[in-house]
Amino acid sequence: MCDQCGCGQMGEGAPQDRQRLTLAADLRAAQADTARHNREHLAALDAVAVNLVSSPGAGKTTLLESILSSLSTSRPVVVIEGDQQTDNDARRIAATGTPVFQINTGAGCHLDALQVHHALHELEVPQGALVIIENVGNLICPAGFALGQAADVVLLSVTEGEDKPAKYPQAFSDAAAMVLTKTDLLPYLDYQKDRCLGYARALNPHLPIFEVSARTGQGLEPWIRWLLALAP
Amino acid sequence: MCDQCGCGQMGEGAPQDRQRLTLAADLRAAQADTARHNREHLAALDAVAVNLVSSPGAGKTTLLESILSSLSTSRPVVVIEGDQQTDNDARRIAATGTPVFQINTGAGCHLDALQVHHALHELEVPQGALVIIENVGNLICPAGFALGQAADVVLLSVTEGEDKPAKYPQAFSDAAAMVLTKTDLLPYLDYQKDRCLGYARALNPHLPIFEVSARTGQGLEPWIRWLLALAP
Repeated sequence: MCDQCGCGQMGEGAPQDRQRLTLAADLRAAQADTARHNREHLAALDAVAVNLVSSPGAGKTTLLESILSSLSTSRPVVVIEGDQQTDNDARRIAATGTPVFQINTGAGCHLDALQVHHALHELEVPQGALVIIENVGNLICPAGFALGQAADVVLLSVTEGEDKPAKYPQAFSDAAAMVLTKTDLLPYLDYQKDRCLGYARALNPHLPIFEVSARTGQGLEPWIRWLLALAP
Repeated sequence: MCDQCGCGQMGEGAPQDRQRLTLAADLRAAQADTARHNREHLAALDAVAVNLVSSPGAGKTTLLESILSSLSTSRPVVVIEGDQQTDNDARRIAATGTPVFQINTGAGCHLDALQVHHALHELEVPQGALVIIENVGNLICPAGFALGQAADVVLLSVTEGEDKPAKYPQAFSDAAAMVLTKTDLLPYLDYQKDRCLGYARALNPHLPIFEVSARTGQGLEPWIRWLLALAP
């Protein structure tokens, strides 16, 4: 209720809010069912999926371009790309020779389990594959939706500032690993790396953190080993 | 329907989807009512609001820190900060001497008009003020929600890559101006600036674009003049 304006239209707890909460719970349950199905689908193939989450422009696609050839010498790799529009990222991944399927979410702000299910069938996932899901560029919404992945990885670029884990905690709390990208730019920034890592570890104390530069190749090997060790 | 798995649980157009669309339309209408109320509230004070939208870490707060003292010599300025967690940004703005109100959205991925309405009352907006709303760091969701602003400004940092306008178009289509930030880093990047600006102008042909560096001060003056000229 707006006392100052006397407009009488600003009450809290409107019927829509309650209805929204109920519907959100229903949708979440349906998502969880489909995600469970995706996991079973992958497990039957001895395959495993990893979900990459970050802000737009943190460098997910560039990082994949730089590691896909190394990964695919050890196990089959396929990629699912999520963006609102364009197949730019799928074309970049396809140029590395890796099978890829692009999902365009339109107005959607994250991938959902049904879209990933469709992509798994389109890709004809090989036995023993690593399925890399590059989610829509959004540090917030993708963190709340299970897709059938064995692990979430949150990427953060050094140009995004130190306090993002504290401000947008869910992606960091849920992550099985964090990748700090674009470390080649550190000499040109006023960036307190330990402050950033401290915020992340305050939420997730044993979080493995890989510091990488796709441009120089620095730090990529430990991150590749971690991905290859992922098991269903 | 999943033919390969034969699970029979993957039909499209589930009842939840239809229910969700109806509810989303109801919520959007309620938001629009509150946004209209906020605009009237501001117009009665001869004040105007601008809504800043970007990815996390594009430099919204740093840019505000660098222009608030200039702005406030010409007209009263107040700031509304949106983040999921922390009052880090409000403390930074308060240190400049500018009145500020922090909204924490919790799990929410964007500000809504009711939150802004509350903030307008808490701030006791002065006559003739410029109200700067720094939305939650998210290039997608904030673009879809009216708050009562006279103008949206989308910020994009040069470290985010060239194709973000094409991939996440709504914020760029809706914007009254675009600010390209962190231009001091251009010498250290492989960045095709004209490609990025071309994507933005393909969506919004007459979009004013300000290229700025908060660190060096380059390009700030035209952006300040544009903000000061905003009218209800």
